[in-house]
Amino acid sequence: MDAKSLWNDLQKLRATAPLVHNITNFVVMNNTANALLAIGASPVMAHAPEEVEEMVGIAAALVINIGTLNRDWIAAMALAMAAAKAKGIPIVFDPVGAGATNYRTQTCRELLQRTAPTVIRGNASEIMALIDASIQTRGVDSSATGSAAEAAATSLAREYRCVVVVSGATDLITDGTRKNYVRNGHALMTKVTGLGCTATALVGAFAAINPKALSAASHAMATMGICGELAAAQAAGPASLQMHLIDHLYSLDQEAISRLLR
Amino acid sequence: MDAKSLWNDLQKLRATAPLVHNITNFVVMNNTANALLAIGASPVMAHAPEEVEEMVGIAAALVINIGTLNRDWIAAMALAMAAAKAKGIPIVFDPVGAGATNYRTQTCRELLQRTAPTVIRGNASEIMALIDASIQTRGVDSSATGSAAEAAATSLAREYRCVVVVSGATDLITDGTRKNYVRNGHALMTKVTGLGCTATALVGAFAAINPKALSAASHAMATMGICGELAAAQAAGPASLQMHLIDHLYSLDQEAISRLLR
Amino acid sequence: MDAKSLWNDLQKLRATAPLVHNITNFVVMNNTANALLAIGASPVMAHAPEEVEEMVGIAAALVINIGTLNRDWIAAMALAMAAAKAKGIPIVFDPVGAGATNYRTQTCRELLQRTAPTVIRGNASEIMALIDASIQTRGVDSSATGSAAEAAATSLAREYRCVVVVSGATDLITDGTRKNYVRNGHALMTKVTGLGCTATALVGAFAAINPKALSAASHAMATMGICGELAAAQAAGPASLQMHLIDHLYSLDQEAISRLLR
Repeated sequence: MDAKSLWNDLQKLRATAPLVHNITNFVVMNNTANALLAIGASPVMAHAPEEVEEMVGIAAALVINIGTLNRDWIAAMALAMAAAKAKGIPIVFDPVGAGATNYRTQTCRELLQRTAPTVIRGNASEIMALIDASIQTRGVDSSATGSAAEAAATSLAREYRCVVVVSGATDLITDGTRKNYVRNGHALMTKVTGLGCTATALVGAFAAINPKALSAASHAMATMGICGELAAAQAAGPASLQMHLIDHLYSLDQEAISRLLR
Repeated sequence: MDAKSLWNDLQKLRATAPLVHNITNFVVMNNTANALLAIGASPVMAHAPEEVEEMVGIAAALVINIGTLNRDWIAAMALAMAAAKAKGIPIVFDPVGAGATNYRTQTCRELLQRTAPTVIRGNASEIMALIDASIQTRGVDSSATGSAAEAAATSLAREYRCVVVVSGATDLITDGTRKNYVRNGHALMTKVTGLGCTATALVGAFAAINPKALSAASHAMATMGICGELAAAQAAGPASLQMHLIDHLYSLDQEAISRLLR
Repeated sequence: MDAKSLWNDLQKLRATAPLVHNITNFVVMNNTANALLAIGASPVMAHAPEEVEEMVGIAAALVINIGTLNRDWIAAMALAMAAAKAKGIPIVFDPVGAGATNYRTQTCRELLQRTAPTVIRGNASEIMALIDASIQTRGVDSSATGSAAEAAATSLAREYRCVVVVSGATDLITDGTRKNYVRNGHALMTKVTGLGCTATALVGAFAAINPKALSAASHAMATMGICGELAAAQAAGPASLQMHLIDHLYSLDQEAISRLLR
């Protein structure tokens, strides 16, 4: 990954404003929509079984996030994922809280086995739980380190022939063979709810305009990390970080990317 | 519309704090409630079929927004709209994403035909889709211009004998005969999710204290536009614009209205 | 209550990061999660009947908030409360809008009678409505004063053998015998949606690490009030107050507690 290719993707994203269809959790819907608008995409949230397939039909990417799942929402997710696969648009999957309850772990596995996504993004223990059901996640926060999850990420990427992102102090992005690392970001970001979900949504936005999923996911994670650093430098705490982060997604330019990308 | 009548309405709103009952979408609930509190109203969100009629019974206005609709919520909306009609309080309707899926377009038509609202507020393509099912909305963002929607707005206002608001760079407010235009606002507002929904909720607040719907809706749109301009002048991006906008709804005074109203 | 014991609790909270399981309303989920993260807890939102008992199994406290209740959510709340009781972790209950509709009032009573909570936190009219069904709440905002609710709070605390918090300009915290008063806070906080819900969630966080419920609830209310004052001093309106409040929950230190606790 280099600064030039990230900047090219970002320019394309802003020029084309791809429609990103999200079936996501109640906690982050507002921030997710705002992050997608700020980066240049056009977000839509829709979960009714009567409309998800039609909405996928006009979308350029589908983002699935199980953060506040229940039976009805899972059914809608399955419908939407199948429609996205049939249409050939990228599917990004966020297994929020996999490993915290069997319900979450099993739901993820069933959805993934039914329709393999283009990218899976989670924290270390979520990714590990998708490979090994004995892994315990502490709520929605990771209880494992990124390096411990590296083997799980590789296995998962190979199992579903997809790209896997393990976010953490250093983000790992792998297709099961190649590995990218993003070292951008700031510790205060872990004190803002749903920034992992925002990263997932941004992967959807980049994947909508870049068919190379490893590259798209890496660009999205670097964008999050760089804007997080810029935001943290101005923030007095997690709430002001959240605000500055969205503002920086909107104003991010080539100079900042070149200067900060690690 | 003149600055004096807007200021009078705003003072009345702050003095009486009307209860505004919202059945709205998950993305904007928090911002909608905060905007209503900031402008001086008292918001309540309730969607259980067991309570919506009773909640309407203590409310001064009802706001219906289909942004994240499903079957259960639609049933609650129909119940609440009928109760509001029977009680004689204003009903404000926001057809979020009409034209994006048949489900949204048909749901809007069924709800409107069952109970005509006092005001319908949407962007250009949403308003056009309610008249002509062949109009395609791109997700929840308008794909048509305000001027192109003017004929549709007039037809829609006549069909339901209501006021129709088409928001855009210039807002049109019409009862099918008279037309008001509001030229306030700022382009950055389109990068904040749900500001259209906020406008709809403010229409509910003004309609709660002003029985002349054309005037109430015009005052609400002007309030949004003026506060949006004030906020944009301070904002570094869409998230800080959102924050400043709510703050300005709270502190808006006669001087700013007189100076900025266009 | 003294500054030293509050500071000790806060240090313990930050050191242990207890998992707080929330079944709460759509309006406040994001702010609740952010407030819990900022104060040092680890929040999780989960409402599916298939997983709430398992999630309680890994949680240190359960927070129940009926703000946007419906039948399915009530069933999940009942399951989770029973599981929390069986496990012996604190249950904090927020009767949002009790007294506004019979549905809310009755739902609260049924849930409370089935499983007595550790703490109930509401505004004056909500607390009064739980004792006397003839009390009318105006939406979700209190229509009674704190002092008028003092007798109701005592009765309620004795009925369920729990701690009751009546928030207002002065907060009352009682176990039916002892009474604490917190005089911190700022009037502008009433213009921010869901700060009562945030207070309830903070009670959950403090109760997770302090088994003395009267003390834990008092510490939580004082923390809200102090951070609200610090935030109001910097705020231009309700939205900036919300942001600064979360930032201050994150950075609150012993000096500010000692200086401001009333």
